[in-house]
Amino acid sequence: MAGETVITVVGNLVDDPELRFTPAGAAVAKFRIASTPRVFDRQANEWKDGETLFLTCSVWRQAAENVAESLARGTRVIVQGRLKQRSYEDREQVKRTVYELDVDEVGPSLARATAKVEKNPAGGGQQRPASGPTDDPWAGARPTNGQQQGGGWGNQTAQQQPAAQGAGYTDEPPF
Amino acid sequence: MAGETVITVVGNLVDDPELRFTPAGAAVAKFRIASTPRVFDRQANEWKDGETLFLTCSVWRQAAENVAESLARGTRVIVQGRLKQRSYEDREQVKRTVYELDVDEVGPSLARATAKVEKNPAGGGQQRPASGPTDDPWAGARPTNGQQQGGGWGNQTAQQQPAAQGAGYTDEPPF
Amino acid sequence: MAGETVITVVGNLVDDPELRFTPAGAAVAKFRIASTPRVFDRQANEWKDGETLFLTCSVWRQAAENVAESLARGTRVIVQGRLKQRSYEDREQVKRTVYELDVDEVGPSLARATAKVEKNPAGGGQQRPASGPTDDPWAGARPTNGQQQGGGWGNQTAQQQPAAQGAGYTDEPPF
Amino acid sequence: MAGETVITVVGNLVDDPELRFTPAGAAVAKFRIASTPRVFDRQANEWKDGETLFLTCSVWRQAAENVAESLARGTRVIVQGRLKQRSYEDREQVKRTVYELDVDEVGPSLARATAKVEKNPAGGGQQRPASGPTDDPWAGARPTNGQQQGGGWGNQTAQQQPAAQGAGYTDEPPF
Repeated sequence: MAGETVITVVGNLVDDPELRFTPAGAAVAKFRIASTPRVFDRQANEWKDGETLFLTCSVWRQAAENVAESLARGTRVIVQGRLKQRSYEDREQVKRTVYELDVDEVGPSLARATAKVEKNPAGGGQQRPASGPTDDPWAGARPTNGQQQGGGWGNQTAQQQPAAQGAGYTDEPPF
Repeated sequence: MAGETVITVVGNLVDDPELRFTPAGAAVAKFRIASTPRVFDRQANEWKDGETLFLTCSVWRQAAENVAESLARGTRVIVQGRLKQRSYEDREQVKRTVYELDVDEVGPSLARATAKVEKNPAGGGQQRPASGPTDDPWAGARPTNGQQQGGGWGNQTAQQQPAAQGAGYTDEPPF
Repeated sequence: MAGETVITVVGNLVDDPELRFTPAGAAVAKFRIASTPRVFDRQANEWKDGETLFLTCSVWRQAAENVAESLARGTRVIVQGRLKQRSYEDREQVKRTVYELDVDEVGPSLARATAKVEKNPAGGGQQRPASGPTDDPWAGARPTNGQQQGGGWGNQTAQQQPAAQGAGYTDEPPF
Repeated sequence: MAGETVITVVGNLVDDPELRFTPAGAAVAKFRIASTPRVFDRQANEWKDGETLFLTCSVWRQAAENVAESLARGTRVIVQGRLKQRSYEDREQVKRTVYELDVDEVGPSLARATAKVEKNPAGGGQQRPASGPTDDPWAGARPTNGQQQGGGWGNQTAQQQPAAQGAGYTDEPPF
């Protein structure tokens, strides 16, 4: 891709990440981060919290599973991804537009935490065998992190992406 | 600060990070990363490695200690910092210019690894009490990661920085 | 400031920029850009337009006047700024959240256009003397680009900002 | 491409841009920018110039011609591109490494200047007819901006790139 708006955001997870699987077996995790800048108040001569920016992030495949296993509500993370805009109608038929981040890379910040890093086993777990999209509405969802889930979703197939990018499904995030 | 060149780099550590302490007790870690893009070769119709970009990174205070404890040679990381240029003369009196990254945030990438994140104890260890540069041969340096170290260095005092930025000493990196 | 989400967007102006003045005489311009990535369709083996990202941008002071004079609907621009989130209730009392860009730097792209650049006269026009909000119906608003305007607004005073940043009023954009 | 280190730099041109043509007729312009951050000195309670960052930038095709026509020594610009590293031996056989920017987008900053933008004529001038790389060593160079030039260079062919990216030759910059 070219001409995408790639941004880096540093913030804290508002909730535990939510992990789902497509019927085809591809993992996708969604998480929401809050990023609060520090603003220097020259009158008070001190640093204060600025306005918080909230962003919903989607991450795919192996990284999705790693996110679900490694991050939790409150974890401070660094996220790099492509800023996307999505429009939809809410229950009251009001048209809404949301901005979301298609994550290319994410990791826990070491500013105020340590991390015990463990590499994924080579060739492991990238893709679960799928029983097929039509077999079962639940085929694409399994309970995670104690969160209730709404079931599977459509017929999403995994595309091959360059490993360095780590993500980049063009389909809608299934949340 | 304003007008700085803030960049985000994703790459792998070339070596273990090297940790040092100023005589005043401030921690600083240095590490070098290699970032290799993936280039699509349209003739061969496949992705190939592009040219690698190497960057030396400096990180300060608590984050420095966390980096030394959490990262190792080969770890894939996401780093955000300010691109800086430094000129010096090498042993042959040839003037050289290097580009380095003053790290604001760094974390292990979850693209192909999990991480067990542990928050630093509140109020803990941000600054070691310093006994002063002449009192103790270890003031300003302690062995880390099996690397030999050159000892302490000048009288560097810690400045207060906004917590959200995490780093930002204006003094020269002591390496 | 520290920890802000600084992003760079390349896109085309959806409309002519709209220029206003605060009662205190500070200029502010608002413009909206559309950024459309190019996506490589491997099945069709060709590049196609991806989904467009729209962002509203605010720029202050001298740069605002320069934007109003230099840019027009359709101009391709490069914009760097801080991503901000703003919540409000629309006329139907539906709560809405918009993302906007507080512009630090903006310029016309030279990808497919030339530009005749003319420096502002030194010391010129940064701040118009303000006669005060109640003196004059035009205090705080003057017709620009043929767009109708709603009049002045509150008592906003100009803060001094580093020149390199070019903008950065903490008050709400007055649109 | 994926995993490249895309950065945005704001700075002033140190010299006039230098324009050259490959034997195949592709335009390439080189320019060098100086980016000086503003640092707040809390002791003096004032903003001061920080250390300047210099970066050499290369831009290709139509954008190269537009750069040569629009920018000059001293112009403040916004540049977005991919940070690259290049190693070479200087005249004394000392190995040196330079960092350069492969420009995707560049434009004059409107912080303290206006710009009269003029779109390139459709389909115009993208590529000059080339007489072929072997005909004449000077076939790829023509004098520009009153600067003396060192002659043509190797057999560089223009690749098709997505329009939104504007540049991206993988070959070495011919300077």
